[in-house]
Amino acid sequence: MKNLEELREIIRNSISNIDLNRSPQELYDPISYTLNLGGKRLRPSLCLLAADMVGGNIEDALPPAIGIEIFHNFTLLHDDIMDKAAIRRGKETVHIKWDENVAILSGDTMMALAYEYIMKAPQTLRTKVFSVFNKTAIEVCEGQQFDMNFETRDDVSIEEYINMIRLKTGVLLAGSLKIGAIIGGAEKETANKLYKFGENIGIAFQLKDDLLDVFSDVEKFGKTTGGDIISNKKTYLYLNAFELATGDDLSELTELSFSKTVDAKEKVKKVKAIYENLGIQQVTESKIEYYYQRAKKCLDEIKLSLEKKSELVKFAEILKRREM
Amino acid sequence: MKNLEELREIIRNSISNIDLNRSPQELYDPISYTLNLGGKRLRPSLCLLAADMVGGNIEDALPPAIGIEIFHNFTLLHDDIMDKAAIRRGKETVHIKWDENVAILSGDTMMALAYEYIMKAPQTLRTKVFSVFNKTAIEVCEGQQFDMNFETRDDVSIEEYINMIRLKTGVLLAGSLKIGAIIGGAEKETANKLYKFGENIGIAFQLKDDLLDVFSDVEKFGKTTGGDIISNKKTYLYLNAFELATGDDLSELTELSFSKTVDAKEKVKKVKAIYENLGIQQVTESKIEYYYQRAKKCLDEIKLSLEKKSELVKFAEILKRREM
Repeated sequence: MKNLEELREIIRNSISNIDLNRSPQELYDPISYTLNLGGKRLRPSLCLLAADMVGGNIEDALPPAIGIEIFHNFTLLHDDIMDKAAIRRGKETVHIKWDENVAILSGDTMMALAYEYIMKAPQTLRTKVFSVFNKTAIEVCEGQQFDMNFETRDDVSIEEYINMIRLKTGVLLAGSLKIGAIIGGAEKETANKLYKFGENIGIAFQLKDDLLDVFSDVEKFGKTTGGDIISNKKTYLYLNAFELATGDDLSELTELSFSKTVDAKEKVKKVKAIYENLGIQQVTESKIEYYYQRAKKCLDEIKLSLEKKSELVKFAEILKRREM
Repeated sequence: MKNLEELREIIRNSISNIDLNRSPQELYDPISYTLNLGGKRLRPSLCLLAADMVGGNIEDALPPAIGIEIFHNFTLLHDDIMDKAAIRRGKETVHIKWDENVAILSGDTMMALAYEYIMKAPQTLRTKVFSVFNKTAIEVCEGQQFDMNFETRDDVSIEEYINMIRLKTGVLLAGSLKIGAIIGGAEKETANKLYKFGENIGIAFQLKDDLLDVFSDVEKFGKTTGGDIISNKKTYLYLNAFELATGDDLSELTELSFSKTVDAKEKVKKVKAIYENLGIQQVTESKIEYYYQRAKKCLDEIKLSLEKKSELVKFAEILKRREM
């Protein structure tokens, strides 16, 4: 069995070999740019890993794995327009480097390209793979819409938030594993358990992201700590703080959230102090542990040798322990 | 055999029965709005017609036909963002009625929905139908990109223009017919001839659109005559005028194109006069006739009875003769 790093290398090679030297260049250059921005290639690597661990052929899973990565990059491209983000992976986003119209249209084309690769799954499994992928694609869009809705809502529940990150982050990790498993010839139960593993790990992953935005070293994390606080993003930390705060904490939190004059650095410092006061870090860590354990349980229930499952166990632990 | 109007009715019913009562509403309401704006439902009706004329089952072709119409509406939705169009079919466009982010994301979701319906083609034909559709989807994006490129280019050739409208308008009509034919069980040659028929008719259709923008009654056409002239759109008429004009005509045309002070009504009047002087209407009409004849030839070569082909003959004639 190959380890995740070896699989990542296969994905990297395969992506760099995609021929995007097509006309019109104005459409394909941004696609090539986007696909070559790098990134962890997590989803396609997990897809190959799933195929491998259930005893299937990595080669069979490779084109759909690439399709998943193209789709993922398409969502980032369109999300960056919606979020008005100027930088992605240290480089200008497409709508800044080119323009918004180019970003919309090259994103649309990437979506079609993603389907092209998905449909290169082995003939007999094509419909099944397509169904998992398409359900996932729609759910990712739904997650993004919920995320946008939350920006202007003041009554977002923690449950709704978890469901949003499940859709926005969980299901694509889940779908990647399930598609790999299906192509590898896994039994239905195994494929579904891998799906659930991915979904839970995805939620834990996003919660960890929320946590690291506030409680991490700038040097390690690479982005300014507290970005979510500055933008009043309704993260897991934010929602729990409002749930737990009373008295002075609550009025200060409310004031800081609505104030337009408070200095950004000052705001981060003050909100962080309230979070510490309320034990938000611990609340979040315990929720991450909860989803991590749920994921682990799915993996335990899969009827495969420990050795076959070891890469995924390692992967889950790395995600849990990551500090950036 | 059913006629085009009867098929259109089947499509209309089917579209109104699509269940979009899903969450989040903010994502699905704009989709429902877009799909229920009306329109001629030309592409899906042609898809059913092709299935019917080659002796196939209309019911089998219905889901992919709906997928084609969803895709077509998705392209209109995203095109309207790119063109900053405020009105579509007499109603506010999605990015105006909601906002741009909603328009991007509900468009993306429509694309996924389109694939869902495409993949409801009969199992044994699914891959084939998918291939035709996906190639078409990518080409439509390419056509839109060429169209955007042309806005800022001064050296667009007539050949390039024809290729652009082939991609933007021709291939989806063509693909609709081919998909219907494939599902109906047509021989490869028949399916390909129907494709070519659609492609040529699509080009003729767009050229007619260009013509009607300048030479038609406002009452009949429904939109202000001369919109393309006002916006300096590089239409077939525009490109030919620049190709044919010499001396005073050329300098006046150039001046009118670049002037930012000339009154819109005055500009339309003057450009139209030059077009008349140069015989641009006749040049365009003869090109429409050329593509119409090419389409007709494809149809003639299809080995089916005249009766079976009569609906498509009628359809082509209506398109050619239309005055709005």
